[in-house]
Amino acid sequence: MKFKVTSELSYQFNSPGTLILNIHALRTPDQTVLEELHQVEPYFKSQELVSAHAENRFIRIEIDTPSPIHIKYEALIENATAFIPASELYEVQVKDMDALVLSYLNPSRYCQSDKLYRLANNMFGYIDGAFNKVLALTDWIYYNVEYLSGSTNSQTSAYDTVTEQAGVCRDFAHLGIALCRALTIPARYFTGYSYKLSPPDFHACFEAYLGGKWIIFDATKLCPLNGLVKIATGRDAADTAIASIFGDVLFTSIQVGCEIADENFVPFQYDKADLKGLAYL
Amino acid sequence: MKFKVTSELSYQFNSPGTLILNIHALRTPDQTVLEELHQVEPYFKSQELVSAHAENRFIRIEIDTPSPIHIKYEALIENATAFIPASELYEVQVKDMDALVLSYLNPSRYCQSDKLYRLANNMFGYIDGAFNKVLALTDWIYYNVEYLSGSTNSQTSAYDTVTEQAGVCRDFAHLGIALCRALTIPARYFTGYSYKLSPPDFHACFEAYLGGKWIIFDATKLCPLNGLVKIATGRDAADTAIASIFGDVLFTSIQVGCEIADENFVPFQYDKADLKGLAYL
Amino acid sequence: MKFKVTSELSYQFNSPGTLILNIHALRTPDQTVLEELHQVEPYFKSQELVSAHAENRFIRIEIDTPSPIHIKYEALIENATAFIPASELYEVQVKDMDALVLSYLNPSRYCQSDKLYRLANNMFGYIDGAFNKVLALTDWIYYNVEYLSGSTNSQTSAYDTVTEQAGVCRDFAHLGIALCRALTIPARYFTGYSYKLSPPDFHACFEAYLGGKWIIFDATKLCPLNGLVKIATGRDAADTAIASIFGDVLFTSIQVGCEIADENFVPFQYDKADLKGLAYL
Amino acid sequence: MKFKVTSELSYQFNSPGTLILNIHALRTPDQTVLEELHQVEPYFKSQELVSAHAENRFIRIEIDTPSPIHIKYEALIENATAFIPASELYEVQVKDMDALVLSYLNPSRYCQSDKLYRLANNMFGYIDGAFNKVLALTDWIYYNVEYLSGSTNSQTSAYDTVTEQAGVCRDFAHLGIALCRALTIPARYFTGYSYKLSPPDFHACFEAYLGGKWIIFDATKLCPLNGLVKIATGRDAADTAIASIFGDVLFTSIQVGCEIADENFVPFQYDKADLKGLAYL
Repeated sequence: MKFKVTSELSYQFNSPGTLILNIHALRTPDQTVLEELHQVEPYFKSQELVSAHAENRFIRIEIDTPSPIHIKYEALIENATAFIPASELYEVQVKDMDALVLSYLNPSRYCQSDKLYRLANNMFGYIDGAFNKVLALTDWIYYNVEYLSGSTNSQTSAYDTVTEQAGVCRDFAHLGIALCRALTIPARYFTGYSYKLSPPDFHACFEAYLGGKWIIFDATKLCPLNGLVKIATGRDAADTAIASIFGDVLFTSIQVGCEIADENFVPFQYDKADLKGLAYL
Repeated sequence: MKFKVTSELSYQFNSPGTLILNIHALRTPDQTVLEELHQVEPYFKSQELVSAHAENRFIRIEIDTPSPIHIKYEALIENATAFIPASELYEVQVKDMDALVLSYLNPSRYCQSDKLYRLANNMFGYIDGAFNKVLALTDWIYYNVEYLSGSTNSQTSAYDTVTEQAGVCRDFAHLGIALCRALTIPARYFTGYSYKLSPPDFHACFEAYLGGKWIIFDATKLCPLNGLVKIATGRDAADTAIASIFGDVLFTSIQVGCEIADENFVPFQYDKADLKGLAYL
Repeated sequence: MKFKVTSELSYQFNSPGTLILNIHALRTPDQTVLEELHQVEPYFKSQELVSAHAENRFIRIEIDTPSPIHIKYEALIENATAFIPASELYEVQVKDMDALVLSYLNPSRYCQSDKLYRLANNMFGYIDGAFNKVLALTDWIYYNVEYLSGSTNSQTSAYDTVTEQAGVCRDFAHLGIALCRALTIPARYFTGYSYKLSPPDFHACFEAYLGGKWIIFDATKLCPLNGLVKIATGRDAADTAIASIFGDVLFTSIQVGCEIADENFVPFQYDKADLKGLAYL
Repeated sequence: MKFKVTSELSYQFNSPGTLILNIHALRTPDQTVLEELHQVEPYFKSQELVSAHAENRFIRIEIDTPSPIHIKYEALIENATAFIPASELYEVQVKDMDALVLSYLNPSRYCQSDKLYRLANNMFGYIDGAFNKVLALTDWIYYNVEYLSGSTNSQTSAYDTVTEQAGVCRDFAHLGIALCRALTIPARYFTGYSYKLSPPDFHACFEAYLGGKWIIFDATKLCPLNGLVKIATGRDAADTAIASIFGDVLFTSIQVGCEIADENFVPFQYDKADLKGLAYL
């Protein structure tokens, strides 16, 4: 599937500082950046960094003098997603996980799975099969957590959301991840551009490790699961912040877009009548 | 310096399960494992895993049948530490950090630096020089947090400790790390064997990134800074747990030892009269 | 019903100090203290205080010199409980509550009902009738929270327990109260002596305000609901601490007893087949 | 001193419901309500309630049909304040407090003094004299906590504020109270109308129990200490909410005013050069 994605961000730097942006589409074996435009106005020195496991790709901009700054990113992306039969999405045993996958069982800043062990097992432990467990917890979040803009902030974590039951996509993802990890299912945060997200914005959801693959889940159910362009994966939002800002800076505006550049897009959601998993490779 | 380290751990597995231990001395350019003995009784399949950045080295044991299990580790280690003149321990700018170092600015499960920004800057922001800042916050922890066995548990975090002001080495390290990150100084958790720790146990302290090097700090001031053998570094205790246990398991006993196998060991602590940093390479 | 209750507590005062005990059976219209013995050894000046709404009765002991101290309390109590038909346990409207009852809708230290509003309403809001709601939430706590001695401490609150799902009687009561208040049902903490509690100790449960009466609930289901002698009611454990200690003091021992001094005691628990509420008057 | 206070609040009730307002000036021995106007438009049944210790006086309005509602309160108040010499503001011993005063040592929803014991004693325990301790902690809050509208919400507590160091008057008061209680100084929340508050709004500050009197403190230092009209005192904001709303309700507007109706008002703040306490009787 081909996507055309755009984002524009503006800041006012009142002091020299550094801006790290995590808005570029990730390059993976199956996500190809066909065309890409990255503009910074006025000109400041920019540098691309790639994290250890090539899980995100970020741009660091060095603002050496107070200035407004405007960043524009446009890209044409082709990505492949794969449908995996439910029967192959078995629970991977701890003894069979590699070191990187194991690290996605650890609790993290916004996903305190260590505090949710009993809750997760009381609620979902009895369910047969790891894929069914993740589907069930995703549904539980969807039905119980109210999507409410402005109800949470950048410090809100899964431990809060499981009780307060309101939040935005970031909070839905953190809670899904924390519940998975508490059930000994590795899970990681996914940020991306999302087709049909309304109002348009960056989106966050999560991937769970099932049958040796990272399967995508979105407890908000706001957009088609196959309408995503991956920006980054990481332990949680701490690893994948859209923008990290150092200096005396005012955020002034944001605009995000994601269009499908192909015909015949068929929106996909999980459907118990015909169950299969979806993976971004 | 040469060290002889030992640890013995016993568990009772009431079900099949998996045990992941993080008790082996790390192999680094300057920490050499001269001899090493690793025994598991009775025999179960074991496998060594190394994390992405070679920051820890762990052993996974697959217990396929209920059983008591006894692990014994003994090693002869030679490590080098370097003294770095205080004048070289300048504050590294965000624009000069690589992707891995940048990740140690992120808040993590037990080090919620995002919540401590104002506090850290109110308390230590005015101090001149990054090395002095870290020394000052280490002293503040030492003077204000009471070392009190049993006062905290595996869920206690820096956010708790900054207020409750009691804890053990793990809590002292988490608070040190969180304060550093809130001051835009990358910091990471360090677990190791420690000479002269009383009662003998695994030890935790932290490293701050100063002048392009990871400098060691220990807010407990319980042992000489140059009497450590590194087991692992990571974001916090979530990355470097001594033991991760999967299954129905009872912990039964632990014994830890660390002796210096060299003569002429001169215990080292930071001393304002003759200031220099210490790094484990 | 007649009860013989006893408690003995010992402390070591290493400095002069004050000890406030909340271990005396409350005097209410229907709970009569037939006989009572209160001994303090060695002699220190003691004073009885009664709280504003006669909801607790406490003894303040002024230890003016370092000393061990041993307190013994024995009493013969007669109390009446009333069975109220389920049909009379209607939901009282906010417009019909007096000022004191209204105060039991407020969040308190250990019962942060303001944080549980959505959760409580998602879980129990659909249930018909206030009595059924409280029975349902009591059952939910009983089935999901593990009774685990030592799993919590004096700072643990309902907000923790709803997620961590382990605790002792105090935690079960706090969670019950917080859920009730979040459902706009006034609820208060109840401490008392309990017949058949094993091991013997002080007990905590809660009362919900239904049909204009305070109905007793115990999510631990450890003892018969009609086997209690009331010591105090209050917003939560902060108001009704068994002992409040001021000074440099070591707690050394406790012993609690509660026997029925009548024949023909018929243990009572709520039973959906024959539903009625129980009130301590 | 005479004050003219006004407040106007508007709500939209989308369902029948109940509104409890705590905006009336309290009647105390030394605060006289000379004239008072209370209007509800359209007409709904209203009832005045007074809490147990006459610490607040609230109006309950029963909205029996969906409607907008507009409340207007105007009053002419005469109150007396007393200056108490610093020498009389001694620390009251626990053995000399009555039951009501003792209850203001308990931790409460937003003032978790039990968690701040070590911190408060580390920071202020060494200071000589209870009045000086409270002045010092008030100053510490003033200098370290940033007054930042919108930085906190109705769930923010002293435990958050002590670390996050931003908030509004309510948060400043909660932290002051929690620190006092942790130092065994009874303290309570004070809501009122405040002269010279900008922008005009209800104000919150706190009283500490010194020398047998309730002395006023305001860590925001936004207004003169002698320019207040007391609405209520209580354990914290949970007891003294300006408005408690039951039903499907939208808050639409608020307007608050407080003018001095006397000449020769001399604004008063604590001044170390001429130290005396101020009490609202």
